[in-house]
Amino acid sequence: MHTPKTKVKRIPKRGHYDFETIATILDQEFLCQVGFVHEGYPVVIPTIYGRSGNFLYLHGATTSRMLVDLQKEGVEISLNVTLVDGIVMARSGFNHSLNYRSVVVFGKASLVTDQDEQVAALKVITDQIAPGRWEEVRPIKDKELKATSVLKISLEEASAKIRTGGPIDDKEDYDLDIWAGVIPIKKVLGNPIEDELRKKDQPLPDSVKQLLGR
Amino acid sequence: MHTPKTKVKRIPKRGHYDFETIATILDQEFLCQVGFVHEGYPVVIPTIYGRSGNFLYLHGATTSRMLVDLQKEGVEISLNVTLVDGIVMARSGFNHSLNYRSVVVFGKASLVTDQDEQVAALKVITDQIAPGRWEEVRPIKDKELKATSVLKISLEEASAKIRTGGPIDDKEDYDLDIWAGVIPIKKVLGNPIEDELRKKDQPLPDSVKQLLGR
Repeated sequence: MHTPKTKVKRIPKRGHYDFETIATILDQEFLCQVGFVHEGYPVVIPTIYGRSGNFLYLHGATTSRMLVDLQKEGVEISLNVTLVDGIVMARSGFNHSLNYRSVVVFGKASLVTDQDEQVAALKVITDQIAPGRWEEVRPIKDKELKATSVLKISLEEASAKIRTGGPIDDKEDYDLDIWAGVIPIKKVLGNPIEDELRKKDQPLPDSVKQLLGR
Repeated sequence: MHTPKTKVKRIPKRGHYDFETIATILDQEFLCQVGFVHEGYPVVIPTIYGRSGNFLYLHGATTSRMLVDLQKEGVEISLNVTLVDGIVMARSGFNHSLNYRSVVVFGKASLVTDQDEQVAALKVITDQIAPGRWEEVRPIKDKELKATSVLKISLEEASAKIRTGGPIDDKEDYDLDIWAGVIPIKKVLGNPIEDELRKKDQPLPDSVKQLLGR
């Protein structure tokens, strides 16, 4: 949504505010950086998330700084997810850039207190990394649920920023004998390494096969 | 350095405070997430950085939110760099994890006002993405320098957090017939795509060859 907070200020034409664009970027990743204010100073930490409809779920140990703050009064957060797609090499340093798809979310994170929603959220987070994994593993225990806090944040105040394509150089720089172009970057999954501590070999589960496109 | 802010609270054995470990992680990346407090609310944005000795340099347009705040009084920031090395699949959802190397930095970012240091910092940032690139491109112009603010932050208040290895399951879960293991994740560079708008073909420069290990 387009609010004073979410408005893309630098290079506004790269800004996107539609839900579809934002959700598509978020669904490509599972790691975000969350920022919040703790005792007056900013803290940024990496954490995993899961998207369900118009909400993101985060989780953490009930002892973490963010969750300690949260239990007092709720916590204003900002979070970012950035997919880097390429290095854009121009003919000047100034015009170098990255190709990327990025989402910034603002809002108040609230603690999920309903136990059914808490379990559903943990499924969403697990399946964000590997769809279907939740159903393959040992069911969650009560003591695990108690040790895990789940936060929920709406995607209402979110925006995306996207850059694609080649370098954009100053007109006169195109005459220079300098290589310019894009070096694509991809995240690649390697061959699964089965746990050394297994008691017997197990076939690769569907979630891993799907993840690896097998 | 080990201060109340930087102390790794969750799973302290994963915390590292030595400069070598922190610098090595930072040197593997060029993108960080910076958090700061703007008009009372937290903002997290992705940006590129360069490391030179005990300092990180960031840059931005002089119009950005962070730099507007900075020009008033200096700005407290927190930044994170996270390299994800693998998905750790355990026999329970609770014991799922990631393998990662992550650095969090706290401190006050100051504006670089000395012009020589500003140029040197822009070289550091450019070369963080592709070592040697700065020397290959058209020299920076005065108007470009004026349009670009450079921030500097010390690595004094920084800590690293690292997880490696296989899943760690509850003792009794090892008897379950559930696949567990690690799926490695790597960032891979693709074949360079030369700028469509080039006036003639250029040989691949040394910086790109080095980046691609050719």
